[in-house]
Formats: sequence, structure tokens, C-alpha cells
Amino acid sequence: MRHTISVLVENKFGVLTRVAGLFSGRGYNIDTHNVGPTHDPNTSRTTILTRGDDATIEQIVKQLNKLVDVPAVQDFRNAEYVDRELVLVKVKVDSATRAEVMQVTDIFRSKIVDVQPETLTIEVTGNESKVEKFLDLMKTFGIVELTRTGQVALPRR
Amino acid sequence: MRHTISVLVENKFGVLTRVAGLFSGRGYNIDTHNVGPTHDPNTSRTTILTRGDDATIEQIVKQLNKLVDVPAVQDFRNAEYVDRELVLVKVKVDSATRAEVMQVTDIFRSKIVDVQPETLTIEVTGNESKVEKFLDLMKTFGIVELTRTGQVALPRR
Repeated sequence: MRHTISVLVENKFGVLTRVAGLFSGRGYNIDTHNVGPTHDPNTSRTTILTRGDDATIEQIVKQLNKLVDVPAVQDFRNAEYVDRELVLVKVKVDSATRAEVMQVTDIFRSKIVDVQPETLTIEVTGNESKVEKFLDLMKTFGIVELTRTGQVALPRR
Repeated sequence: MRHTISVLVENKFGVLTRVAGLFSGRGYNIDTHNVGPTHDPNTSRTTILTRGDDATIEQIVKQLNKLVDVPAVQDFRNAEYVDRELVLVKVKVDSATRAEVMQVTDIFRSKIVDVQPETLTIEVTGNESKVEKFLDLMKTFGIVELTRTGQVALPRR
């Protein structure tokens, strides 16, 4: 099972290294991972998509809560939440396939952000299953390059 | 000056720790940072938004290129590129301000992804200046919580 964990950290030297070290040191899996500022200049938020059974996730959350300079750990297993990821993907096109790629992009409410004679660069956002489905469709045309931000999440309440 | 650096890394144990360690060990600044899979199951891509003068960036790129298990480093200073970030932000609203927040969201072509009696959760994507401007406007209503993915970028060609 995949789980999203969001960790609020104080902007102090070495905190993120300790969070990352907790995962690598104990062999916990990280699928995606990101760090960005919050509206409070003293803290950043890091979101980690990890895999494991309930006991493993329980253990990870417990360990994260023990770290100093970590004011809050949100585990989204039992809460309603919104999760989103952004992907930029450059797809191979020619005069025959360009219209088809544009149609699929439209159906997924995604945006074409760059056009070149032989490629289209598309911005797609959504939860994991939407993004994966879009990328699967694009594979049939040929993916030249892609970059993913990894998931972020907020509780609904 | 801010610079976006994109690093392709092989999915081997400890590579990301070495990339992160290069920044923390030498005191290079990291504004945002993320890691996600690519279309090649053997590699991941990490994008780092850093600050520094030209000589510092030159130095960072040189050091990154020296790391083993790092097949490619893209420095976007001298290239045309597309950069995007995704932010989820929960904004305080009441019956008087809800319509106003919805108008601003519409102008920025952003999406409302959750509605609660006293909050709206909004998904905004764009380059750094667009996202910052939107967040500045939301501050006047009151930001309850926010999470940012950090920037990702792809070269136009």
C-alpha cells in the first residue's frame, strides 16, 4: 500500500538530512519526495510518498514524531485529503499524431505549454491514478523526457 | 539570482543522499527540492532551485557532474526552458469573501479542489512569479495551510 506522509520541519540546518536519513537508514521505501517553503518563514513542509504495511507506516510516523525540530507529522491514512502532483512531459509528435495528442490532453484537462516541430510539452496535474493513466497513454506516442514533482497533500478539514 | 538545476540519477542506494550532501556539506542554498521517477525505471530526476552568483552555480554543476551514478546534469541558465510548480493552499473564507476568492482563482486559471464552510482549498500551477503573486493575494484573506511541490523544469528543445 502507498501512503502519503507530510512533515512540517523547522528551517534549521540538518533537519531534512535527518528526515531523509531516517528512511534510508532503516530501508524504508521513498517513491517521491519534495520540500518547499510554507506561509511561515520559519518552517518548510516535506511530503513523502512511501510504501509499506500498516505496521511499517505506524513505525515511520512514530520515528518522525521523535525527531527534534519536527513540529508536526501528518499521516493521511485515516483522514480525508486532497492530493496532487504536477508532471511536465515532452511527447514525440508528427503531423499525423499531433491532433491526437492534443485531444487526449484536452480530455485530461491538461495544458500544452510548449510546441516544437517534433514535440509537444504538456503540463498535467492530478492525483496519482490520473497522472499515471495520462502517462500510459502518452507512452504509445513516445515520451522523450519527463519530470515529476511528486505528490503533495492537504487534509480537507 | 535563482537557478534551476535538474539532475538525472540512477536508482541506486545512497545517490540522492550524496546529491543532498553536496549542497549541505558546502553550504549551498536549496530553496525547493523534489525527486520523482522518470519514464526509465532505472533513473529518477531531482530538481533543485538554488541561489548564488554565476561562479557558485558553475561550481555546483561541476561537483554534481563528478558524482558517480549521475548520468546527466541540466543547468537551465543558458537554455530556453519551461518551469512549473504546483501549490495546494487552504484559504479562510466567509459568506462575504468566498466570491472574491473564487474570482481571483478564476483569473489565475487555478482550480478549487475542496470547499468547506470556512475554507476553500485551491490548486495553483505556474512558474515562480505567478505562484508567488497568487499567494500574496491569498494572504489578504488568510492562509490556513499550504504545501508546495517545488519547481520542475524541462528544456524547450
